[in-house]
Amino acid sequence: MDQPTILITGGTGFVGSHLVEKLAELGQKNIHVTSYSDKPGFVHQLLPSSQIHQLDLTDQEKTFALIEKIKPNQIYHLASLAAVGKSFNNTKKVLDNNTQLQLNILEAVKKFSPDSRLLVIGSAMSYDLTKSYDGHSPQSITETYPLGPASPYAVSKAMQDLLAYSYYQSFGMDIIRARPFNHIGERQTPDFAVAAFAQQISAIEKNQQQILQVGNLTASRDFTDVKDMVKAYMLLMEKGIAGQVYNIGTGHGHQIQEVLNLMLGFAEVKIEVEIDQARMRPSDVPTAIANPAKIKDLGWQPEIKIEETLKRILLYWRSQS
Amino acid sequence: MDQPTILITGGTGFVGSHLVEKLAELGQKNIHVTSYSDKPGFVHQLLPSSQIHQLDLTDQEKTFALIEKIKPNQIYHLASLAAVGKSFNNTKKVLDNNTQLQLNILEAVKKFSPDSRLLVIGSAMSYDLTKSYDGHSPQSITETYPLGPASPYAVSKAMQDLLAYSYYQSFGMDIIRARPFNHIGERQTPDFAVAAFAQQISAIEKNQQQILQVGNLTASRDFTDVKDMVKAYMLLMEKGIAGQVYNIGTGHGHQIQEVLNLMLGFAEVKIEVEIDQARMRPSDVPTAIANPAKIKDLGWQPEIKIEETLKRILLYWRSQS
Repeated sequence: MDQPTILITGGTGFVGSHLVEKLAELGQKNIHVTSYSDKPGFVHQLLPSSQIHQLDLTDQEKTFALIEKIKPNQIYHLASLAAVGKSFNNTKKVLDNNTQLQLNILEAVKKFSPDSRLLVIGSAMSYDLTKSYDGHSPQSITETYPLGPASPYAVSKAMQDLLAYSYYQSFGMDIIRARPFNHIGERQTPDFAVAAFAQQISAIEKNQQQILQVGNLTASRDFTDVKDMVKAYMLLMEKGIAGQVYNIGTGHGHQIQEVLNLMLGFAEVKIEVEIDQARMRPSDVPTAIANPAKIKDLGWQPEIKIEETLKRILLYWRSQS
Repeated sequence: MDQPTILITGGTGFVGSHLVEKLAELGQKNIHVTSYSDKPGFVHQLLPSSQIHQLDLTDQEKTFALIEKIKPNQIYHLASLAAVGKSFNNTKKVLDNNTQLQLNILEAVKKFSPDSRLLVIGSAMSYDLTKSYDGHSPQSITETYPLGPASPYAVSKAMQDLLAYSYYQSFGMDIIRARPFNHIGERQTPDFAVAAFAQQISAIEKNQQQILQVGNLTASRDFTDVKDMVKAYMLLMEKGIAGQVYNIGTGHGHQIQEVLNLMLGFAEVKIEVEIDQARMRPSDVPTAIANPAKIKDLGWQPEIKIEETLKRILLYWRSQS
């Protein structure tokens, strides 16, 4: 049987690089990625440069040309401007960028590759995590939990999710949506707490930094290993039902303080911790824990324990610089 | 007691003109409106020209300057590019325009008039009207019913609604949201079915047209008289709880066919009806009926019967041209 042609937007980023790694490991050859950046990175060791397309997906003409040329059977659409914290200073850019690239991808597929199966990655941050509704609480978020994003980034992800749904509704396109909860692993940027902790611990171990700076430690989050996350995406590509949306998370919460304590336990030196006001956000939701029953019904199960994940992340940061 | 300074964005449009009329009738003097168009219309008979501000709310500089100058106590934010049908050919423009103007209003209020009470008008079309969820159906849409817009217009309204909520969440702004179901009355554009019927019936009565052209007649909608709708907005401005969202509708559905039959019964001549494929939409939801329990708890009740409304609309179109 012919191998499918796979396109991963944002494929050189954090999650994309793990997805490429997994697909390549399984023997997939026809993997194309788009990358906003022209800097060579991890994925350049895995794919020939002819399959790495440097482009800005907010450029309609280039996005149309790429989809017309590749006509992918499967599209993992990961690309967005990410990072919740920064989006407060960048509201217009985050909204414009994430709207424009979503529209370009949807229109390109509609026009040039209408049979593509498209997995659109949203965010659990789009839910209204500040309240309990109709007997459900932020301790167990199902897919019908009301949307109510608190940050501009989360608004832009809700919009991408809803826009994709409208193309499924109006044009019958083969679109599945995922709403991942927090995920962590190697190559995540230190805009995210766990990577920031690991980077700083490694720097302190090397005597390049004195004190570990942290933000809000009281929040509780549902952390999935990025390697389990990309397996969920692959399962949705295989078995997801068009038009449906799937939460992805373990169903269990960890306080950021607890994660920090685990990591400090893995450190090679004793480390002093200090709250940095600049790392606190204008709004931060106390708890965000998935009810992953729907994707579990398709056969997904997270397999990696958080301690293993945190150790790997620390090893990764020690190997950097 | 001093009268409040009131700003109505889109205040010369269909709903805006009815809101200005009602507020003026109650003796409010400090009513300002913004208008995208520079054409004089109904509202120019009600307000001095110094209170009618011609501007494009997607222009950040001008929007900031207006809010800084007026510092309104109350803002009824009605302005958007409307019309579901047309939005399919205009996706980028509708999304960009409605995102940009929403961001400008929210940022302007945050910066220059943070104590303003802001009523943001969303749309019932943002709900996922194609499915039943958790025991609720499109026969009785509560505010926690999942969002799932089918048209680009509906996506843009969901985004405006969620963006406003994020400013309430992050900055504690005094924002209330409304999700009106269908509303009808004088001065609505014939992009909407009931106005299109009335305009054509009047033209046929005057021998300017032969056959009445219609779109989908099987859909069922919850129609509120625009005069009842603006009373709901005024009640929300007075009693709505910041951060909350309120559906506005009668709770009862009418098939478009039934509305057409009522109007044909009011016509002065016998009228032939023909389906016009150009008036059918790529996607159209079969049923959209509010559960208005939440706003009824604040004391709202629709008062005008649909027959009265339809007669008034027909009289209005007969008086035009």
